[in-house]
Amino acid sequence: MSLEEVYQEIEHNKDASINLLCDLLKIPSIAAKKTGGPEAIEFLSKVFEEAGFSYFLAETAGNPVFCAEMNVGARKTLLFYDHYDVQPEDPVDLWDSPPFEPTIRDGKIFARGVSDNKGEIICRLQAIKAYNHVFGKPPVNIKFVIEGEEEVGSPNLEEFVNNNKNFISDADGCIWEFGGRDGDGIQQVYLGVKGILYVHLKTNTIGRDVHSGYTQFVDNAAYELSCALAALKDRNDKIQVPGFYDNIPEPSEKDMRIIEEFELKEDLFKENFGIDHFRLNLTGMDMKKKYFLEPTCNICGLWSGYQGPGGKTVTPNEAFAKVDFRLVPGQDPKDLIEKIRKFWDDNNFQHIEITGWDGYIAAQTSIENPFALAVINTIKDVEGHDPVIWPMVGGSGPMYLFEGVPCISIGCGHSKGNAHAPNENIFIDDFVIGMKTIAELIHRF
Amino acid sequence: MSLEEVYQEIEHNKDASINLLCDLLKIPSIAAKKTGGPEAIEFLSKVFEEAGFSYFLAETAGNPVFCAEMNVGARKTLLFYDHYDVQPEDPVDLWDSPPFEPTIRDGKIFARGVSDNKGEIICRLQAIKAYNHVFGKPPVNIKFVIEGEEEVGSPNLEEFVNNNKNFISDADGCIWEFGGRDGDGIQQVYLGVKGILYVHLKTNTIGRDVHSGYTQFVDNAAYELSCALAALKDRNDKIQVPGFYDNIPEPSEKDMRIIEEFELKEDLFKENFGIDHFRLNLTGMDMKKKYFLEPTCNICGLWSGYQGPGGKTVTPNEAFAKVDFRLVPGQDPKDLIEKIRKFWDDNNFQHIEITGWDGYIAAQTSIENPFALAVINTIKDVEGHDPVIWPMVGGSGPMYLFEGVPCISIGCGHSKGNAHAPNENIFIDDFVIGMKTIAELIHRF
Repeated sequence: MSLEEVYQEIEHNKDASINLLCDLLKIPSIAAKKTGGPEAIEFLSKVFEEAGFSYFLAETAGNPVFCAEMNVGARKTLLFYDHYDVQPEDPVDLWDSPPFEPTIRDGKIFARGVSDNKGEIICRLQAIKAYNHVFGKPPVNIKFVIEGEEEVGSPNLEEFVNNNKNFISDADGCIWEFGGRDGDGIQQVYLGVKGILYVHLKTNTIGRDVHSGYTQFVDNAAYELSCALAALKDRNDKIQVPGFYDNIPEPSEKDMRIIEEFELKEDLFKENFGIDHFRLNLTGMDMKKKYFLEPTCNICGLWSGYQGPGGKTVTPNEAFAKVDFRLVPGQDPKDLIEKIRKFWDDNNFQHIEITGWDGYIAAQTSIENPFALAVINTIKDVEGHDPVIWPMVGGSGPMYLFEGVPCISIGCGHSKGNAHAPNENIFIDDFVIGMKTIAELIHRF
Repeated sequence: MSLEEVYQEIEHNKDASINLLCDLLKIPSIAAKKTGGPEAIEFLSKVFEEAGFSYFLAETAGNPVFCAEMNVGARKTLLFYDHYDVQPEDPVDLWDSPPFEPTIRDGKIFARGVSDNKGEIICRLQAIKAYNHVFGKPPVNIKFVIEGEEEVGSPNLEEFVNNNKNFISDADGCIWEFGGRDGDGIQQVYLGVKGILYVHLKTNTIGRDVHSGYTQFVDNAAYELSCALAALKDRNDKIQVPGFYDNIPEPSEKDMRIIEEFELKEDLFKENFGIDHFRLNLTGMDMKKKYFLEPTCNICGLWSGYQGPGGKTVTPNEAFAKVDFRLVPGQDPKDLIEKIRKFWDDNNFQHIEITGWDGYIAAQTSIENPFALAVINTIKDVEGHDPVIWPMVGGSGPMYLFEGVPCISIGCGHSKGNAHAPNENIFIDDFVIGMKTIAELIHRF
């Protein structure tokens, strides 16, 4: 019995694994459209049961969470976090093959959800099956948490975690849902995700729109909101809300070394974003420190007054904006929303109304955590060279809910996998290597 | 022969005058929709010819300008500026009677254009006819300039004026198109209109929208535009563009006295605008000085990024705005647009693109001008008390084109006449008094 035999089994079963993935991809399980959830759960129940897992459905206020477990009485437990829901397929016209009819072209599988994250679900399951085929059982207990609302912001995952604390806290490590190769084909490992504070704003200054000949008499809602937004940070991106940076720990020497060693592929980003220089002419270490260590303040949307052709001379009575703040460890959205409110109140922006907000904190696993080292070394061995280690990504996710369990995100996607976009795809080769990585990780763990 | 007989003739002909007005109101002469122009011209040609005027059509790149003249060999010439086009009637659902079927209710005539400004055209014409009926001819030469594109910004009036300089410069005074009674029923006299600079803005900072997890790397178009707009003035409305206030003459003592004596009906404005205090808690003389003597900077519209329901975490690559500046005498939009461009260039806002602009200068007639005094004293005599004299209104108009001719704006509308809105109306009594005022003005002038 050796891992080599597991690899052979994975290769041997490659077509069956692809077929199983395609069966799952045919189910249009779109949380935003409330379609396909029960069918996806039925599918998962069947295939996990066939693989020897016990399972249960954890009901929530929204879609139930599918939980599977294979308890072999081992000392350690490995948890996988995935989701059976996918992004809406729109705009359908831009797909080269129908989004829910999986199609193989140029060594890739195209379908909605193949990269995010049904590919990983099947990759992980098939790796475990192959391992068990050779070794009889895994060397660790294995659990899956597969939720159904990740693509709409995981609104009920907190409820699930609170009701199933033991199921999660038993785990010694968790493989998070997403990941893949960068533009140079190098496997990436994500050690954390930022938190987020998302804020909806409205200002209503006048009883109605006013002819702009009288603009002196009234507060222009568009101007007041522009000023309030401009006041949030200086033009070097230093956020001006008092206390916004409180409680953010100084990075350790180790953190700084990881960041220094991290190769941020600036040219790939410039090409991808269609820009010839970065904001504030950032480059090198300054840019990396800003990306990994600093919170952000970003206007997502802004609207007021007349937006049609030609000119209309009006002083708008209402203006609206949506703003997100990406948070680093130490920052709490509940605390920050109060500080923002106070900042505006203290600076004569009482008329800016916060009509809604939500958010959650960041989560990060230390690179020195044994589970992180195990994942990194596994990938190094399977790939034959070092992965790119992201101490933190700029995006956000509900990883914080798995408090106390080190979470590491890897996957079988790639940088042109079009997650959330038409023609979503993964490479078949990446899918196969992904299975080997998971098998190796189980073995090593 | 006396003015009293003219008044009797006006009363005697009241129904005929109303009928004539209604015939004109039935013609849907909407410049924005390119409807009814030829029919309106045909109507004007007929009625002005019948009244003893000679007339000609001045062709322009747009609708022709209807010009009528009654030259009696007098020493002085009185000019009227009007327009035969009206605002679009939309939204039709909100009209209580069809906009182009004039209807009399509660002593008022309801129809699109009755207040702005077909009521004045017929009022002025019928007053002259009544005067001539009694006196045989007017004591002054009379001219009419009735354009067909006032409601779309008079784009071809400059061309007309340049091609017909003598027709206008011969005049010793011009009665401008609009006016009426305020909320207390007091007749108003407008001595000037502000200039305007209308600016269309765009900023495009990135090749495409970017996931806000990478917002640090790129310039957020919504934020950059918000900052550029916020920078235009301080929060006390002092415009920050260097040189913006250059060439504005100090107000004379006489100007200041008029402003001091002007009763700005603050409570009526508060009620009308649905506010409980004015911007910056303005009141009294400070508010009047700001209104009459200062230019403005006003955001008419602003839009960028995601404006739909819920949240989307995006850094927008484009943002747009429309801004108007109301100008006082001494300011030139051509000069100001260069100063604004330089201000943004000097303050690191090179990426704010001015995609278009137009504008014109202010125009104002001194209260000491003999024509102004004649108009004011005429109204005082007809009404039995002083009118409200506005040295300048906050709105704008192409009065500057009639350079050298003192222009005064009066009319037969009222503060709830719904110009540019559904259920546009004038009081029949105001229409009749308006005729008497014009007859008296001709007599006195």
